[in-house]
Amino acid sequence: VSLPEVDPTGLPTTARGFSAGATYAGIKTFGEGKLDVALLASDRPCTVAGVFTKSVMHSAPVDLDRDHLDDGKGQAVVVNAGVANASTGSRGLEDARTMSLVAGRKLAVDPRDVFVCSTGVIGQFLPMDRIEKGIAAIGLTPEGGDDFARAIMTTDTRPKHGSVRFGPYTLGGCCKGSGMIHPNMATMLAFLTTDAPLDHHFLQAELHHAVDRSFNLVSVDGDTSPSDTVLVLANGAAGGEVIHRGSPYAAEFSAALEALCIYLAKEVARDGEGATKLIEVTVTSASSLEDARRLVRLLTTSYLLKSAVHGADPNWGRIVAVIGRAEVRLREELVTVDLCGQRVFQAGQPTTFDEAAVAEAMKRDTVTIAVDLGAGPATATGWGCDLTAEYVSINADYHT
Amino acid sequence: VSLPEVDPTGLPTTARGFSAGATYAGIKTFGEGKLDVALLASDRPCTVAGVFTKSVMHSAPVDLDRDHLDDGKGQAVVVNAGVANASTGSRGLEDARTMSLVAGRKLAVDPRDVFVCSTGVIGQFLPMDRIEKGIAAIGLTPEGGDDFARAIMTTDTRPKHGSVRFGPYTLGGCCKGSGMIHPNMATMLAFLTTDAPLDHHFLQAELHHAVDRSFNLVSVDGDTSPSDTVLVLANGAAGGEVIHRGSPYAAEFSAALEALCIYLAKEVARDGEGATKLIEVTVTSASSLEDARRLVRLLTTSYLLKSAVHGADPNWGRIVAVIGRAEVRLREELVTVDLCGQRVFQAGQPTTFDEAAVAEAMKRDTVTIAVDLGAGPATATGWGCDLTAEYVSINADYHT
Repeated sequence: VSLPEVDPTGLPTTARGFSAGATYAGIKTFGEGKLDVALLASDRPCTVAGVFTKSVMHSAPVDLDRDHLDDGKGQAVVVNAGVANASTGSRGLEDARTMSLVAGRKLAVDPRDVFVCSTGVIGQFLPMDRIEKGIAAIGLTPEGGDDFARAIMTTDTRPKHGSVRFGPYTLGGCCKGSGMIHPNMATMLAFLTTDAPLDHHFLQAELHHAVDRSFNLVSVDGDTSPSDTVLVLANGAAGGEVIHRGSPYAAEFSAALEALCIYLAKEVARDGEGATKLIEVTVTSASSLEDARRLVRLLTTSYLLKSAVHGADPNWGRIVAVIGRAEVRLREELVTVDLCGQRVFQAGQPTTFDEAAVAEAMKRDTVTIAVDLGAGPATATGWGCDLTAEYVSINADYHT
Repeated sequence: VSLPEVDPTGLPTTARGFSAGATYAGIKTFGEGKLDVALLASDRPCTVAGVFTKSVMHSAPVDLDRDHLDDGKGQAVVVNAGVANASTGSRGLEDARTMSLVAGRKLAVDPRDVFVCSTGVIGQFLPMDRIEKGIAAIGLTPEGGDDFARAIMTTDTRPKHGSVRFGPYTLGGCCKGSGMIHPNMATMLAFLTTDAPLDHHFLQAELHHAVDRSFNLVSVDGDTSPSDTVLVLANGAAGGEVIHRGSPYAAEFSAALEALCIYLAKEVARDGEGATKLIEVTVTSASSLEDARRLVRLLTTSYLLKSAVHGADPNWGRIVAVIGRAEVRLREELVTVDLCGQRVFQAGQPTTFDEAAVAEAMKRDTVTIAVDLGAGPATATGWGCDLTAEYVSINADYHT
């Protein structure tokens, strides 16, 4: 299936019936004066699907949202940036619940239909007075998606959003994350909205499928946040029959969802902390999808490879070193490695390639790496970014 | 068992009957004029044990050495730095074999008793004319251990060596590695020598045991080299009965071996590329040794934690985030985290601790992290280093 084009101007309020807004409540201790509390709401109840972090250390909002997702329904999202409300015990859970109550009261929505996300420093309690005042101060409009996308940012340097059309419907959304994983103050959060009427089970299954092919294959630094959350809200405002597996528009919806998730995931990698380049890694002929994804993940998280890409150094030995330690099935004599489109390794030994040309190609803003394992039918593509001195400085100096 | 003291002035030629030497053959393209080909030899046949990389991509010297180790015997080692002779196919294997032939002829030793190690850039062929001339030019002396330890260096900033006495015997050795894993031009290599008479099976088993508690728990950047090699040569020059499991001196030898391996492993972490600090991580109350080691490994390789340590930022949320994604058994309500000796997390939430005092302690040259998982009896300790802008610059700019 070829994926549809993503409109980069699309927002979580592009689909019909969604409005949003944000304010600065004084929670972000950095970027003083920026937005840090935000609301997104539908004008009618939605079918909701969600995918959450696999971290076993507790994030209060994630615990609450898992509970609120039980019935597959919802209508609004309240988010704050600056403090993640993770590893904060029972007080943290109480604070997350209060956020849903306060937002629900303001929006006249059952608090169980309000999802809560917090992103920022782990292990700090939320300043609840500021949060409550912030929520009260927000005005929601159908144009508020841009403010929403900005308010959820932490070390992100720019908002990340887009939309896709499928049939008579629109799927829009935004995400934050300057790394799928971050330091003291982050999280990968994504919020998708559509005016299509979607069956909950179909929506949840397709979201898992799309996340596995997008956000779960992006890495900035290899560290999973306890707060990672992707939510999709479908309000059916554009009318029509409920979309199940096999319905008209089911395949188009799946393609739209995958396209938007991949677009946003690549935006995260491009805006990785300190990053100057996108790395796109494709693994082919793996013996299993698990092997293909595992190798993609290891290649996009290698300190050495990320540093070499930063320096535009066509040092493909680092790719081979990662392949060697990846514990994936391969036939060494069939393994090939292409760097920026040039074959650099095959038949167990170096090729003669134009090193200067590859070094030149590595200076562009996207560096492609293709590995064929010669071991089977599975394929995966994922994204990362280069490692820079700026990354170290962001993460050495942030919290204090 | 408490481990014996390591004498940091000890060398691979400290044990009786060993001599060594090195020369500059023009293989290192960096550090012009430094030593880059080296020989280490015993005056009599030795029992030999070895542990090699688990990388499945071929390193010619590792393939040759595995073969030469078949009979558990050997007498000499020839090493070059600058080019790793890895991913070089059949020509690479032929070159490694030639190195053993040339060194064997010079030393009047069967080539099958000569072990070959190469460290440096992956995917380049060795300049064999220079290697052969270099081997011919080396003069071996009982004081040559220091030159040997220097010749095997790549990005290392200093030689790493030491020795331990046990009973009437000496165990000495050296290693190189500025990361257990390195970029374009490296490898962790360690060469240990003893004048004790050791049974091969006992020696091999004890080496595995010691490596699992030392080198296998050190990380600079998480990237395993295809060339990693640890060799121990026991020549029995100090006399006495052959030491088997349960012999007099068996326990003392094991302790000496573990002490020296840990000492050298910590030296590698301290001299990690760009590193300014040693990180020592201890995990207690893990449900299995595998879990304890896995968490130690993940903590010592986290970009975020390594950056926080560099910035002396007491941002313990990053430790909790790694615990959360580690896929180890734990009881969150029992998990505790200590940073530089101060309890920062327990009972699922932050403690109130003196943040300024911990930040101050993190400025010292060793930062300790202790995690108790509350899940079982297993314990592990490992070592890493901070992540610095210097690391990026070393690895972005090296190869070209």
